[in-house]
Amino acid sequence: MYNINLLFCCNPTEQTGVDTHLQIFGIKLPLVQPGDDLVSLTIESSKRSGTQILDRDILVFSAKVVGVSQGRLLELSKISPSEKAKALATLYNLDPSFTEVVLREADAVLGGVEYALLTIKKNVVIANAGVDQSNAPLGYVALWPEDPQRSAEDLRGRFRENGLDVAVLITDSRTLPMRMGNSSVALGVSGFRPIEDLRGRKDLYGRAMRVKRLAVADNIASAAQLVMGETSEQTPVAVVRGAPVQYGEGFRIDEAIIPMNECLIMHIVGKRPL
Amino acid sequence: MYNINLLFCCNPTEQTGVDTHLQIFGIKLPLVQPGDDLVSLTIESSKRSGTQILDRDILVFSAKVVGVSQGRLLELSKISPSEKAKALATLYNLDPSFTEVVLREADAVLGGVEYALLTIKKNVVIANAGVDQSNAPLGYVALWPEDPQRSAEDLRGRFRENGLDVAVLITDSRTLPMRMGNSSVALGVSGFRPIEDLRGRKDLYGRAMRVKRLAVADNIASAAQLVMGETSEQTPVAVVRGAPVQYGEGFRIDEAIIPMNECLIMHIVGKRPL
Repeated sequence: MYNINLLFCCNPTEQTGVDTHLQIFGIKLPLVQPGDDLVSLTIESSKRSGTQILDRDILVFSAKVVGVSQGRLLELSKISPSEKAKALATLYNLDPSFTEVVLREADAVLGGVEYALLTIKKNVVIANAGVDQSNAPLGYVALWPEDPQRSAEDLRGRFRENGLDVAVLITDSRTLPMRMGNSSVALGVSGFRPIEDLRGRKDLYGRAMRVKRLAVADNIASAAQLVMGETSEQTPVAVVRGAPVQYGEGFRIDEAIIPMNECLIMHIVGKRPL
Repeated sequence: MYNINLLFCCNPTEQTGVDTHLQIFGIKLPLVQPGDDLVSLTIESSKRSGTQILDRDILVFSAKVVGVSQGRLLELSKISPSEKAKALATLYNLDPSFTEVVLREADAVLGGVEYALLTIKKNVVIANAGVDQSNAPLGYVALWPEDPQRSAEDLRGRFRENGLDVAVLITDSRTLPMRMGNSSVALGVSGFRPIEDLRGRKDLYGRAMRVKRLAVADNIASAAQLVMGETSEQTPVAVVRGAPVQYGEGFRIDEAIIPMNECLIMHIVGKRPL
């Protein structure tokens, strides 16, 4: 019921029953190499499986597979760790060269736990600045695309060239406050609005909402993570169909970001409890 | 490919194409009142719409609708705000009686921004301790179920009495670090494991994962939020079908929680950057 047309064409309080039907498909790809055309691989793989990609589908790509296709790989044996990287590596049980890459990639390092540094990169709270060994060729680490927002737009353009009017989301897994497991965060978006603004909408009793916005892109990223493999499943792409998003041009992930000093959690935590 | 049987019955590297097919339906309910039987209402509403609930579906309920059905409503005019509540209400532009209820419900108050206090309740980082005016009767606020984990188990038992072997998840919306919109968090789970533990699994190149766990329950909560209304949509229930979860008995939300002093984000943030 988020689509603007739907909001005007029906009154949701008049009926009961099923409202929205959303579908998510995982797309298994062959092993992706630097220089591979991800869009062709995705279209071919989906056709082979009998599930065509349709206009208005949202195609979700892991930052890892996009980075690898762009050749964003570094050979760890060629990296000279700085003294700072060596010290942090000792402190948090990390490889010194890996730690050096994280320091180069991160906009800020906030601290660490065993095997991970907590960093800020492009205003996203993320472990190890998105640098990751898993599913990179042995001896290498994979980096985020240089500009995930631009990559989302480029991938969408390539689908258009193939006759498909889809939206694109680029995602990475992320740590959540006080939760054991990783969820997923949206890094780049093209073709739909990443935030749903509910301010001013009325609740069941006619009360106007004052603050509520929904992290639609992050929710789609997290939903897609349910079908995207993190180990050897080779499923770095998901198709999300029927999501109640606002399609359109010019939307960017920037809209979904709050700077650190304005964030309810990051601004407050660490101060003394009241 | 998370299902244990699937892990043994096929080699995911041998094929390309669509892997998992996940479906999410929103269920529109009539206006829920204290004392209403949520399970009967959900089953009736789903039948009326022609979409039957099936065994192994995951039924996602908002904490709000579960709390309301349990009569967890407070009339604000009957609440006397303390001096502390009045001071915080002035500071953050909140109603003093509402603030008093938040103080009573929260295990810890970490700070605030306009219209919201950041709190910890049952080891969940949440705005206003889950106390909410929206979609509560006018003059009232709705609280979380007293024990969301127990409520998930009770609801699942009631579905069983109706011949349906489903899993149940109870969710609320939550604030995310440095993100503009709310996502969703799992508060109680029954019938599937809330965390997917990937430690020891091999990646594409045979490398064993060291730290990775996935927040499966939170991801399902966030996926369901895409179809569940926050304003007047009257869609407080979602059916998630085909999610690759580990079904079973005895799983509890506790497994998904990290105490504050062990959390990568909450433990570190506020300390000096390195």
